[in-house]
Order: sequence, then C-alpha cells, then structure tokens
Amino acid sequence: MKNCLIAQSGGPTSVINSSVIGVFEKNLTYKKFDSVYAGINGIEGILNENIVNLSEINKDIVCNLKYTPSSGLGSCRYKLENANSSKEEYIKLFELLSKYHIDTFFYIGGNDSMDTVNKLSIFGKEINSNIKFIGIPKTIDNDLDVMDHTPGFGSAAKFIATTALENSLDADVYNTKNVFIIESMGRDTGWLAASATIARINNRPVVDFIYIPEMPFDKVKFLYDVKKKLEVKNTVTIVVSEGLRDKDGKFISQMNSFGTDKFGHAQLGGVANYLKNLLKQSGVKKVRAVELSTLQRCSMHYASQRDIEEAYNLGEFALENCENIESGYMVAIKRVNNIPYESEVFTLSTSLVANKVKYFPKNWINSECNNVTDEAYEYTLPLIFGEPKIQYENGLPKYVKIK
Amino acid sequence: MKNCLIAQSGGPTSVINSSVIGVFEKNLTYKKFDSVYAGINGIEGILNENIVNLSEINKDIVCNLKYTPSSGLGSCRYKLENANSSKEEYIKLFELLSKYHIDTFFYIGGNDSMDTVNKLSIFGKEINSNIKFIGIPKTIDNDLDVMDHTPGFGSAAKFIATTALENSLDADVYNTKNVFIIESMGRDTGWLAASATIARINNRPVVDFIYIPEMPFDKVKFLYDVKKKLEVKNTVTIVVSEGLRDKDGKFISQMNSFGTDKFGHAQLGGVANYLKNLLKQSGVKKVRAVELSTLQRCSMHYASQRDIEEAYNLGEFALENCENIESGYMVAIKRVNNIPYESEVFTLSTSLVANKVKYFPKNWINSECNNVTDEAYEYTLPLIFGEPKIQYENGLPKYVKIK
Repeated sequence: MKNCLIAQSGGPTSVINSSVIGVFEKNLTYKKFDSVYAGINGIEGILNENIVNLSEINKDIVCNLKYTPSSGLGSCRYKLENANSSKEEYIKLFELLSKYHIDTFFYIGGNDSMDTVNKLSIFGKEINSNIKFIGIPKTIDNDLDVMDHTPGFGSAAKFIATTALENSLDADVYNTKNVFIIESMGRDTGWLAASATIARINNRPVVDFIYIPEMPFDKVKFLYDVKKKLEVKNTVTIVVSEGLRDKDGKFISQMNSFGTDKFGHAQLGGVANYLKNLLKQSGVKKVRAVELSTLQRCSMHYASQRDIEEAYNLGEFALENCENIESGYMVAIKRVNNIPYESEVFTLSTSLVANKVKYFPKNWINSECNNVTDEAYEYTLPLIFGEPKIQYENGLPKYVKIK
Repeated sequence: MKNCLIAQSGGPTSVINSSVIGVFEKNLTYKKFDSVYAGINGIEGILNENIVNLSEINKDIVCNLKYTPSSGLGSCRYKLENANSSKEEYIKLFELLSKYHIDTFFYIGGNDSMDTVNKLSIFGKEINSNIKFIGIPKTIDNDLDVMDHTPGFGSAAKFIATTALENSLDADVYNTKNVFIIESMGRDTGWLAASATIARINNRPVVDFIYIPEMPFDKVKFLYDVKKKLEVKNTVTIVVSEGLRDKDGKFISQMNSFGTDKFGHAQLGGVANYLKNLLKQSGVKKVRAVELSTLQRCSMHYASQRDIEEAYNLGEFALENCENIESGYMVAIKRVNNIPYESEVFTLSTSLVANKVKYFPKNWINSECNNVTDEAYEYTLPLIFGEPKIQYENGLPKYVKIK
C-alpha cells in the first residue's frame, strides 16, 4: 500500500484548495497512490492524528473544494522546533506517516511552511526514511523568493484593485473634497497594495497614492502630497500596506502595539486609520478609511480564474511528477511570456524559500516615493485575468465544507 | 421643445445608474422628450446650474453607466427648506427648469429625496406650473415605506451574505475558538444585517447571531449567547447593524459620538468594534471585527442581476408612463409572487414615503432576540438572484465616468 498526505498551513487564500484538488483529481487519473489522506489543521493536526481519507469521501463533494475559498483542510501556524534541539515531534510525525503508509507528503503554505518541508526532508534523510516531502506554495502576500508570483496573489490583487475602482467612484459622488484610504495586507511587503495600480477608468489610474513598506514613510511629505492633490481633485484615493514603516524602520501601526504572532511576526493593522487621523488633525475634513481585512484573501466569488488554474496546475504537476521531485523541493510558477501571458511550473529547493522574503523591487517605486511605476502595472495585470467558474445556487456561491 | 431632467440624491447604490439608463434608453425608443438632461450633484448642483445634456453624449458611453456602480450623475445631501419659510430656492429652481424647457423632473433617491419631490410638486401646483416631479426610489437600507423592497438592497444583501459566507470559512481554519463580527450599514433599520441569514453551507446558516436596531441590545444576554455557542462551535459568526441600540434607545455606537449629518441623522459606525471589545474584556481571546463600509453599496462586480433589472424597469416605467403619473408621485416595486419570483411596478404618492422609515418586522425576529426567522430568509433570497452582466477588460470591470 502506498498513500500520500496533503495538508495546508498559514493564512488562507481564495485558491489554496485548487492545489489540493490538483493533487486529488489527478490521482484519480494517474493512480499514483491508493489513498489521498488529508491532514486536518496542518502539521499541528497531523501530530494529533487528525487525518482523514479523502479517497473515501464522495469525489464530487471533494472536487467542489476547487471553487471554495479558505483552507478546506483547516490550517495552523505551527513552527517545528529544530530537530537537533528537540527530536520528539519529528519521531512522532514519522511514526504516524508510516502508520498511514505515507509515501509522499504535500504541504501547501508560505515561507514558514516551506521551512517545515525543508526541516522534515533533512530529518528524513538523517533517519534514512523514504518518505518524500514536497512543498506547494501559496500566499496572497506574494513574498516567496525565486518564483515569479504565488498562487493566491492574483485573486487578492483583483479584489483590491476592483474595490479601489468601485469605492473611489462611490467616494466621488458628493461635491466635497475627500480622501478615501484602503488598507491592504501584505506584512513586510508591498505587493498587495501596489497591485491597486491596475485600477483604471478611461485608461487613467484611479489610485492617486500607494504607500508600501519598501518606501520609508514620511509624514510631512504625505500631508503635502495629499493636500496638493486635493487642490486639483475632488476625491483622493490612497492604498496603503499594513506593514508601512517610517525611515527608522518602525511600523506605523506600532503606535497601537498589537504584539507578535507565534512566528515572532508583528501583528499589524490600523495604518489606514492612522493616516486618516493624520489628515483630520491637519485640517482635511472628510476622510474614510477601510481595512479590507480577510475579505481580500477569501473573495472566491471574484477570484482570478487564471490564479485558480495556476494553483490547480501546481498540485497537478506535483502529483504527476512526484517520483522525480526530490524530497525537500517545491513546485513554483515561472512566467514564460507576459503578452500573451504564459507560465510554467518548475521545481526548486525549499531551502531557497524557507524563512526568506521577496520584497517589492525598489526600482518599481516612483521617484516621489508615493506610487509605483508601469512595471508594477505590467507585472500584475495578467495575474488577475478571468472570472471564476463558480457554481451558484439561488444566487449564492455553492461552497462545501468537508473538514 | 420638451425636455426632461434626471438627477440622483443621497447615498449611492450599485444599481442607481440602472434607473437613469432605464429613463435614458427608453426615451431613445419612445422619444417622449427632445433631450434628457442630467442634473449633476442632485438638487444642489441643479441650483448651481450644473446641468448637462445626456442626449449630446455618445449614447454607448452613457448606456455603459447601467453596469457602473455609484451615482454616475453625482449626488448631494441637500434638504430644501419649507417653501412657506423660504421661497427663494424654489423660485430659482423653477426658473432654471423653465430655461431648459423641462417638462418632467425624475429624482432618484431615498426618503429624504422623496420629500424633495413632494415639496416641489406642492410648490409647482401652488404657482400653477406644469412641470411634473416624479420620484424613483433607491437605497440599500430598504427602509422606504409601502413598497416591497428598494432597488440597491438586493445587491447589498448579496454582497453581505457572500462576505459572511466566505469570511466565516476563513475564520474557521485554525483550531482556535474565535468570533467573527461583520458590521453592516442600514441606519435605523436592520434589513441589511438581517439579509445575512441567507448565507448557507450545506443548507445550514453560517451566521450564528444577527443584531439589528429593531431588537433592544442586551450586553449580558449577548455575552452569554456567544460564550455558550463557543462551547459547541469553533467559529461564531455575527452580523450587526450600525444602528444597534440598547433598551433605552441609545445608539451603541454613540459611545464614540460621531455627530449628525445635515438631515440630523446620527453618523453611525464602530458597533462591531464595540462588540469586539466587549468580548475581549470578558475573556474571549480571538475576535475579528470588519466594517463593510462603502463596499456593500458599490460592489457592482457582484450585484444582483435581478436588482439591476428592477432598477432599470423603474426608470423605464417612469419614462413610458410619465404623462399618466401625477406630479409628486413615485414608481415602486410590488412583489406579485415569491416562488417563482415575480414583481411589477406601481405608483404611489411620495407623501406616503417622504421622511418615513420602514422598520424590519418585529415578528421576523426570533424569540431569543438574537437572530431573524425564516420569513426573512424567504423574503430576501429572491432579491439577490443572478450574476451581473458586466463587461470586462483585462480582468477588470469596464466602468465609465461621465460626470
């Protein structure tokens, strides 16, 4: 008997389940494994033997996950200790994997999860285990190194840009000078906020200013720029990253001090409100701030169909080529051509991605340090292409829950 | 020469422009008026002679407004004085209407705008003017009296319910007890928050508690209910109206005191955060609060196609029957049948709607006073039907700006 195990980790995306279904559905065709097991709540759930056999569930129900947002197998934020400081969990995990006759473990996640894949593969080699660990990337933040982009980013970018488009129209209806601020996620990187540059009406950008962590934020310049723009426009639209920092590298949101998560990452939020208060205090009367919160990472009703398909292709490729992919490696997307857009899957060592961050390129930031250049527009636009082929029931998307 | 004038007032909706195009497009067919003029920024803009001739603009561009959210002709929040206390504005307005040979003035808005239509029609009769004033309803709040529902509500309900659906899946991925709170608009009424009852997965509601202004909010009962639910569920999902009040009728959000708008309505907001803080203070560790802000009223990318069509039909009916509609009257929607859904347009005096509020029915509130009954489900569901027939360009909706 030869089975595989698949699990999800870290923050959800709209398309994270597509990668699961890429693995699951292609195994129905290629029959590489007798059963596809799912680890519920990632590595943390697996350690508690929270494991279900997807192959024993009605396959139509499982496959509906492809168009269901959020991590259908549950998730965790669980950091494995280094094996040389504590082997216990590693031993327990390998025992459980043996018990279920797991040949290959597919782990879908971001740079922390790729660290888990890397550590497990190294430990596996040390104990001469044949179990293979393969990473599949996901994150709306688009901050994984080496690859062109990550699954999940395109759908979030599509939602953010459309929200900027629609809400700037909404903000502009009254004959009153006003500022509209949208706060995106993205942690230390500005990819998500920068994606709003694609929002256009009559071929003109609707977002006036974009502020990202890769630009040191300058309060004085900010107030000057916005007020100058208000002299010539009724509505000024701003998109800002949660992880904005000042020139000393201090998080703007740390005025409120949200603490840190289990990985030691600062818990961010509240930058839009901070900018709103700055503007109000300096005399701008009408300012609205909106935090997109989890909406940007789970709006499957408006996901990018290209993103859904690329996430699926990664799972499919990983399954189809699992014999040839080395343990500790991951699959990823390479952009082959921009217009017309074409991409392909390649493999790389998770050690190149684990715990690293890919920042927004400095040379895609404008000279005023308050927006991004055309390169960002050209980079992002192909990734949001296509409307999701969702099944509707009574006017609402038909999502499933199998957990 | 015989022209008509159309203008928009109050808060935007996703489908408010459909009513404009219903008037404009049907005039191309029926040729009731030589020109269709648009008053920019409602009655306030008209008083400043901010008037454009839509019939002189490329009609394809104008008609694209049908699938563009927000008030394409601009809006205002402008309260006409009573004619018996100040006639100046009335006289100025009638002079301007005569100057442009306006025979009929179509005014799209909520209960304040219907008050404007009512006042103008009364003044017109007093001065023996032949100019006709016809109201066309709109508001996401669904709080206009007499009619079954208002255009704009269905699209907002679709967005709110889908957001509840998707974000409750997102909130549920970690193996951690948590509460997810969504704050909707709706002013003094609970229609919008109540619409979240239609969000279902596997035929089960995903929203555990709905709190609306028509239920007096009880802190102690709230904390008890949520904590009890957390004992049996991982994620508790709550939708709350911005206008929630306690048993003494005091706005929950008035803890922060946001002041009032020009109509004397209290400016609301921050209820979700208030509930979040209540829960945190009483020991619930993980709570996320999201204010849907203007997203719920301008997400045309996800509007209800039925809502778009009904808004269009109202404009179409008003144009087609303008000779037979009495001045000071408005068009509105009557539900003829629920399953299969069927509606028709009827007319009524704006005096029945002006300055009145239609509250959510008390007998659609459950006995625990923390959710709504099946009647709300059956009432709301048909209104969100159908996906919008939007034109896309490079993966983003193609919206227009003609203002």
